[in-house]
Amino acid sequence: MRRTSFAQWPSSIARTTDLLGDAWTPLVLSEAFCGIRRFSAFQETLGIPRNTLTDRLRRLVEEALLEKRPYQTRPVRYDYVLTEKGRDFHGVLLVMNRWGDRWLAGEAGPPMVMRHDDCGRQSHAEVVCAACGEPMTPDNTQPLTGPGYPVRPAERPDARARFAD
Amino acid sequence: MRRTSFAQWPSSIARTTDLLGDAWTPLVLSEAFCGIRRFSAFQETLGIPRNTLTDRLRRLVEEALLEKRPYQTRPVRYDYVLTEKGRDFHGVLLVMNRWGDRWLAGEAGPPMVMRHDDCGRQSHAEVVCAACGEPMTPDNTQPLTGPGYPVRPAERPDARARFAD
Repeated sequence: MRRTSFAQWPSSIARTTDLLGDAWTPLVLSEAFCGIRRFSAFQETLGIPRNTLTDRLRRLVEEALLEKRPYQTRPVRYDYVLTEKGRDFHGVLLVMNRWGDRWLAGEAGPPMVMRHDDCGRQSHAEVVCAACGEPMTPDNTQPLTGPGYPVRPAERPDARARFAD
Repeated sequence: MRRTSFAQWPSSIARTTDLLGDAWTPLVLSEAFCGIRRFSAFQETLGIPRNTLTDRLRRLVEEALLEKRPYQTRPVRYDYVLTEKGRDFHGVLLVMNRWGDRWLAGEAGPPMVMRHDDCGRQSHAEVVCAACGEPMTPDNTQPLTGPGYPVRPAERPDARARFAD
């Protein structure tokens, strides 16, 4: 049975999660942010099965988060390099990392900590409003239907009840 | 074949993604943030198959992002209410939403937009350093091994190369 596809779902959260798939994809991206570029290097640091890695890299290239750049010919071999779209995913990983550190790390503590070079401190990500810089919380942030929300579902009573006016 | 479990992987990103599973789980959480609490209401707004919803709610209760609160007896029926751990996941959804709006929404534009009540503006999430409030980017943020990173893997050359000193 083919699983539900969320690529066309009227939710950027669903579309993004759909692209992520299982944990291998964010792990591959996470390594890419650490400077890993080659198939063999991803394989070695992650211990990921070869066919799984092939599949995840292919998907990330198709979705334009990574691009292939040949570094040798005969046989041709590629580096996998983050695109702007891929680099912009960094914030998602930072915030997932922060949540996991807080709620899933247990007594051992966080497996990784982040150093913010601009202030030189060990720190973590915080989510704020891009307009005013103050924290965005469930209490002060309301979803509204946007321009890309389908017209007919937007008129359904359940959708109207869900969104703020 | 059982898929790889990432619950013990030394990465809070992997652990968090593993908990998410497919896109239904963040969609269920997203509805919970819109005030949805009842099985039938989740089913109606999402059009999610009954057994899938049962499974996702069970997992979210097991992982303590939602808690069950009886609202009637004979037969007993439950509301599913966000816990503190669940409420703290809001930032992950906001940042995923922002990324999807930017990169996956296409010409139609974002399906949802966020209003930040504190400043009254339509806005979106931004990821900043909790210590200094400036943006965290791939260029200014370095991962270091944390207290929860396993000792033996931390000594491997590939792990040492991956993390900043």
